[in-house]
Amino acid sequence: MAGTDSGVVFDTLVVVGPGLIGSSVLRRAKEYGTLARRLVAVDNSAAVCARVMELGLADEATTDGVAAVAQADCVMLCVPVGAMGAVAAQLVPAMKPGAVLTDVGSTKVSVTEAIAPSLRADVPYVPAHPMAGTEFSGPDAGLVDLFENRWCLLTPLEATTPQALQQIRTLWTRCGARLREMSPAHHDRVCAIVSHLPHLLAFTICGTADDLAEETRSEVLDLAASGFRDFTRIAASDPVMWRDIFLANREALLEMLGRFMEDAQAMARAIRWGDAEYIVDKIERGREIRKSLIENRQA
Amino acid sequence: MAGTDSGVVFDTLVVVGPGLIGSSVLRRAKEYGTLARRLVAVDNSAAVCARVMELGLADEATTDGVAAVAQADCVMLCVPVGAMGAVAAQLVPAMKPGAVLTDVGSTKVSVTEAIAPSLRADVPYVPAHPMAGTEFSGPDAGLVDLFENRWCLLTPLEATTPQALQQIRTLWTRCGARLREMSPAHHDRVCAIVSHLPHLLAFTICGTADDLAEETRSEVLDLAASGFRDFTRIAASDPVMWRDIFLANREALLEMLGRFMEDAQAMARAIRWGDAEYIVDKIERGREIRKSLIENRQA
Repeated sequence: MAGTDSGVVFDTLVVVGPGLIGSSVLRRAKEYGTLARRLVAVDNSAAVCARVMELGLADEATTDGVAAVAQADCVMLCVPVGAMGAVAAQLVPAMKPGAVLTDVGSTKVSVTEAIAPSLRADVPYVPAHPMAGTEFSGPDAGLVDLFENRWCLLTPLEATTPQALQQIRTLWTRCGARLREMSPAHHDRVCAIVSHLPHLLAFTICGTADDLAEETRSEVLDLAASGFRDFTRIAASDPVMWRDIFLANREALLEMLGRFMEDAQAMARAIRWGDAEYIVDKIERGREIRKSLIENRQA
Repeated sequence: MAGTDSGVVFDTLVVVGPGLIGSSVLRRAKEYGTLARRLVAVDNSAAVCARVMELGLADEATTDGVAAVAQADCVMLCVPVGAMGAVAAQLVPAMKPGAVLTDVGSTKVSVTEAIAPSLRADVPYVPAHPMAGTEFSGPDAGLVDLFENRWCLLTPLEATTPQALQQIRTLWTRCGARLREMSPAHHDRVCAIVSHLPHLLAFTICGTADDLAEETRSEVLDLAASGFRDFTRIAASDPVMWRDIFLANREALLEMLGRFMEDAQAMARAIRWGDAEYIVDKIERGREIRKSLIENRQA
């Protein structure tokens, strides 16, 4: 029975945007058989649809989203956050009454606001954000265990029905994720500091290095020590996705960046004036946080 | 014959400060037998000396540095960069004429300046910097293959003799490292951007997160996504070592931090005003640098 521990959660699951996240959900659904009976992928690109079928990730892959979602018991939007509003406006009117709408966007205030105008009283909506990813993208990049032991944050709205929320909870639990619920605004602040700001800093330092005089620049590439190398791994992520995230979570991100810049200026001042105690204190705090993370099984 | 491809490079090698780097040199020397015939570790701490002997890393471990270096054909200083001057002042006068002095400090202008007053005409000095490390420290943290395929930067001075330079080149080549020579000042600029600035940013973001309101802070620890987790790995490094590096490479580091802050401000402005093109351009550059690194076998 759908939504319980036995059988599948949904009869037909339509994944819109089978990229890293979407194709990982499809892989999980195919391999475990407990998410949905029938899997459909929707993408604007016929090449992506063909690749999804080659990889055997879905029963059907189509560029005709309107026709596909009309058959869906659940529609999961896995497109960049900047495209969520337009995609919802196009697809939600075609959904069956009672079918569940969900998304996997990395920002939640802007996504829920973008989707709001398209919402229908007979289509419950459950905003979700599985916190998983690699620096790769596209349907080939997905992994069946991408969500294993990772957090999936749910930000239910007032209109979200308990039944739909429970179905999406079950779906992500069956993907291996750990669940937590919070408001969209709180979600965005937390993600600004744990994910968006680190990415912004990583992109920026790569640009700073790239602007150095040619002689230094070429040696930077040759000599990249562990610190810089870790930054470039983060910085190798999908540009459009991150552009959208930065713009969509503008307020929380700029606030966290502002705090960070004040702290970096204070560190610069401590270095300039030789304030050894201040520097050690900041480094010790980094170690403490690392220790907490390890105790928390996150590192 | 010492310094050639056969036999050992030095008869007796004294490693002062058998921490992560020093104990890795000792492990390599023990396992391969091609660096030195006799291995001696010197440390201020009797407990560290006892641990070095328990681990079987040296033929002798002692707190009496003066007596130890009197027997040395090479003295390798592996202490934090802030301690190099004082340690050299204590030990260099006790060295045998013709014995080679070298160091592994992560900054080279300040270390060569700190050691300069202690230098003797009959003790050639070869400044070196093996670019390798982990977030762990102490004699237990060393690895026999820590330097494998990593760069070792040599910054010979005018007075450095060709023979001593060749011996230190051979020593690091036998540790598995790739070699490059440059001036101390150029070294410090390159390392400021590839290593010191990334560490400064990582320490700072951990502090910024730690200062958040309690509710957000506890969720940050729970939810640390990949970006922040990578930062905490960098930030878990030894506080005293990094304090010394920041203070010792103050000028180059503050210059690179200044450039970085300008770039981060420009990114903040682009996010505030929705300049999508600027944001994508910066992210694309991060990807390009990543690609160059992979082609360079560094990532």
